[in-house]
Amino acid sequence: MTQNIYDNPAFFEGYSQLGRSVEGLAGAAEWPSLRAMLPELKGLRVVDLGCGYGWFCRYAREQGAAEVLGLDVSEQMLARARSMTSDAGIRYERTDLEHLDLPPAAFDFAYSSLTLHYIADLADLLSTLHRALLPGSRFVLSIEHPIYMAPTRPDWATDAEGRRIWPLDRYSEEGERTTDWLAKGVVKQHRTMGTLLTLLIRAGFTLDHVEEWSPTDAEIAAHPDWAPERDRPMFLLIGAHR
Amino acid sequence: MTQNIYDNPAFFEGYSQLGRSVEGLAGAAEWPSLRAMLPELKGLRVVDLGCGYGWFCRYAREQGAAEVLGLDVSEQMLARARSMTSDAGIRYERTDLEHLDLPPAAFDFAYSSLTLHYIADLADLLSTLHRALLPGSRFVLSIEHPIYMAPTRPDWATDAEGRRIWPLDRYSEEGERTTDWLAKGVVKQHRTMGTLLTLLIRAGFTLDHVEEWSPTDAEIAAHPDWAPERDRPMFLLIGAHR
Repeated sequence: MTQNIYDNPAFFEGYSQLGRSVEGLAGAAEWPSLRAMLPELKGLRVVDLGCGYGWFCRYAREQGAAEVLGLDVSEQMLARARSMTSDAGIRYERTDLEHLDLPPAAFDFAYSSLTLHYIADLADLLSTLHRALLPGSRFVLSIEHPIYMAPTRPDWATDAEGRRIWPLDRYSEEGERTTDWLAKGVVKQHRTMGTLLTLLIRAGFTLDHVEEWSPTDAEIAAHPDWAPERDRPMFLLIGAHR
Repeated sequence: MTQNIYDNPAFFEGYSQLGRSVEGLAGAAEWPSLRAMLPELKGLRVVDLGCGYGWFCRYAREQGAAEVLGLDVSEQMLARARSMTSDAGIRYERTDLEHLDLPPAAFDFAYSSLTLHYIADLADLLSTLHRALLPGSRFVLSIEHPIYMAPTRPDWATDAEGRRIWPLDRYSEEGERTTDWLAKGVVKQHRTMGTLLTLLIRAGFTLDHVEEWSPTDAEIAAHPDWAPERDRPMFLLIGAHR
């Protein structure tokens, strides 16, 4: 089973204080870019892989989605998500996405935010998801960028001239990366961009849009601490369709 | 017009001594990966954008391509290419790819090796190429990887623990990059992977395969100096179809 770091008390405590936990979608820097990639959600049956607190599930219903299934491995995240809505159109289920099981042709749209980098067997998940979507359905996802995940020391460094640099190494060496973020020993699965995109294609998806999020000038003016994000991408955003 | 660095005497002299110039396709580390992405070439009308010495044009004819058009901006490269064949099925033309002009529906396959990073208006080139290909035609290309092109100092560095790192910065700042490689002041156009892939999609291509070349264990055993290539990708290989 995938490491369930979100049910680690220290991690959950730290995570619950992040902007994206307190403010929801508006607290996520990459949300405007992701939102721009969404189809019209009205009337769609939506599945959210790694729904967390359910912010996107509730958003989808506000946009008129017919029904939403939110899946997550964390009991605590799901408990919080359930406490935040009484909408009968949203269903939350605890699922280990490493062994995803979905009925065929049951959904018209899939979404996944910052979740798939925890999955070791992504080919299996994508194949199940492809079967679960009707032809023509869109799939919008974000994932930690491989450039962000790859390095032995994934943190800013300074070069001989005092310039801020991202010390990239091991980019092509795929597999586990263990970092200390909110808690010790968080395990993620590093894949190159090429591998990730080709896995999507092999699973039957057609790529519509690939974006490596970086802040606009206006966003940097409003959040000067976001400027380093232009030096290396943190989030990879992908739009595809079945 | 795109900088024609290949007709710079110092550059041409240095370039002509590279393995890929002396040995041809077999001297290019990424060739086995690119070759694996090719369709059956027999009977196809092929266009090669940035044909250089014409190694791929001659290969395509050996594989049975019906006719091959090799385009390059460099008179010297084309002169060398013409001197290496008397095959009437290969035609070489001097072209500034920045202002590509091709007849519609005239080709069944397009190839471009390490050329498109010199082009400023890639949307225009891709749109012209798309029109020039029959529906279903494949397009296989390589390009310098954005991770390789982006940094202020695109060269290996050492971190505080003595580890070899690639000092990435400015990844999301697209535009010109000027480096000294074989000659001073070589101008390339940096785009993120997201921008490049989305430009291909917008031009009407469907992505089939995305690969960031890195050496296999066997290749590293044969060429120990290739090992650093696993720390950051140098070549991006893309297979697509119209």
